[in-house]
Amino acid sequence: MASVDSEVSRGTQLLLSTQAEVATGIDRLFDQLLPVPLDPRGPLYEAMRHAAIAGGKRLRPLLVRAAGDLFHVDRALTLRVGAAVEAMHVYSLIHDDLPCMDDDDMRRGKPTVHKAYDEATAVLAGDSLHALAFEWLCDPVTSADPFVRGELCCELARAAGPAGMAGGQMMDLAAETSNFDLPTVTRLQQLKTGALIAFSVEAGAILARIPPEGRAPLRAYSRDIGLAFQIADDIMDVEGDEALAGKALHKDEAAGKATFVTLMGIERAREQATALVDQAIGHLASYGGEAALLRAIARYVVERDR
Amino acid sequence: MASVDSEVSRGTQLLLSTQAEVATGIDRLFDQLLPVPLDPRGPLYEAMRHAAIAGGKRLRPLLVRAAGDLFHVDRALTLRVGAAVEAMHVYSLIHDDLPCMDDDDMRRGKPTVHKAYDEATAVLAGDSLHALAFEWLCDPVTSADPFVRGELCCELARAAGPAGMAGGQMMDLAAETSNFDLPTVTRLQQLKTGALIAFSVEAGAILARIPPEGRAPLRAYSRDIGLAFQIADDIMDVEGDEALAGKALHKDEAAGKATFVTLMGIERAREQATALVDQAIGHLASYGGEAALLRAIARYVVERDR
Repeated sequence: MASVDSEVSRGTQLLLSTQAEVATGIDRLFDQLLPVPLDPRGPLYEAMRHAAIAGGKRLRPLLVRAAGDLFHVDRALTLRVGAAVEAMHVYSLIHDDLPCMDDDDMRRGKPTVHKAYDEATAVLAGDSLHALAFEWLCDPVTSADPFVRGELCCELARAAGPAGMAGGQMMDLAAETSNFDLPTVTRLQQLKTGALIAFSVEAGAILARIPPEGRAPLRAYSRDIGLAFQIADDIMDVEGDEALAGKALHKDEAAGKATFVTLMGIERAREQATALVDQAIGHLASYGGEAALLRAIARYVVERDR
Repeated sequence: MASVDSEVSRGTQLLLSTQAEVATGIDRLFDQLLPVPLDPRGPLYEAMRHAAIAGGKRLRPLLVRAAGDLFHVDRALTLRVGAAVEAMHVYSLIHDDLPCMDDDDMRRGKPTVHKAYDEATAVLAGDSLHALAFEWLCDPVTSADPFVRGELCCELARAAGPAGMAGGQMMDLAAETSNFDLPTVTRLQQLKTGALIAFSVEAGAILARIPPEGRAPLRAYSRDIGLAFQIADDIMDVEGDEALAGKALHKDEAAGKATFVTLMGIERAREQATALVDQAIGHLASYGGEAALLRAIARYVVERDR
């Protein structure tokens, strides 16, 4: 048991140092990629910077990096793809926070974009980051291989669209007035957060030109951590500290929405999240030390404050 | 003069028949590409269909087709790329019509999406069409050549993002409170409508693998018709018939917004639009009969009711 404990401890060290490195890299990249123009579009870029820079745990860029490390992908490339995925994630947060959606005032410890600016700017800042994610991926800087760029764009579009993130958010809005059962809530979360998490992991393998059939273990890993992540999120909505989370909590409860916690009870939800993490790590059995970061991330998703 | 007149008349015939063919093809393609799923995402797909099917003049798909015809590109491919551009255009209309933006109740003779459904569904239907445009372009069905797909995606992302459509809309919102001069209004319109029009024309050439330097005359053509189109739109806002336009007019006037008409006067604006159309047609001088449709479209953009 001592060796397992020390492996976990080494994994945590690796996670913390890599997370700090990736977060710094993402902030620097966003700063370079989003210079504020001296024309009437200035506030649009400022709004994007407000939402994108210095916020969040950068889980998705961390996953691109961790999956890329498996196959020794150039870290400058995984960082760049990470910035594209994060731009897509930030756009979804901006739109989800709008008054007509979840109506949130705080995000990542700061006022949401429509509070700091206005609603129109928030809609357009989200739309702009959505387009920029594709622009950054399509750029030859991301990969010299057009097949790689094409596959990244195609998979990201699927993860973002009505069969992914946007479709999941639509189901989430319906959840307030419908009585969803466990399979429907699971499906909702697979679309809403699972699809982009899965893309992040898959992107590392795409950059390494691993064919789709070689990505099966990673896809299984992503499915499990995506679900574990969301169960942890539902638990945090009930038990979490708002100051630590940087956003309003207890919203699902207030809305009477079906979540993993309301459907399973908090104890079973916690057990289920832990089981999913073990299962996710199990899918990485064919990899050695190069998967240490992916294993550490799996443990982390049920512990973090998002 | 008789031969010029008969050439114009033949061009108009070609335009009308091709426009009808493209419009039917786009409706059929949207119908196939947007099947309503039997799950809580149903209303999201219905909202996309409400906005996308049986509406508008399909100017952008028509431009893809006309530019593709120059180089004998397979018409099934130009139609597919046309559907992607139109999806991008429709998404921008849905978001521009939102209460926090231009707050419009009618579009293409029907209630806007947030009126027919609700604001959250409108935001998500726009977001979904935005992602689908890229998904459709990236699909190997669009082109077997990954370079072509990559270039299409990259150019579309640029045309849609903060240096294109979204940036132009941001400037347009600022126009209500700023006193923009003619160069600024010109730049605003080049971003807001010009970029996607230019992409539509360029896409035909990209599908034919024409290198960037070979696309210069088409780019000059697009710039001119894009501007002529917007001047005509500003004239229509003052003089047009709301029933014919299918949307509210006289909005710029009411908002006290600088437009080509307020800055140039209606007569000079009309002359300028006509001069731009002649100039656009001049850029096609190196092409023969295969450019008849592009010439007819140039004449049409200053006459249509959008």
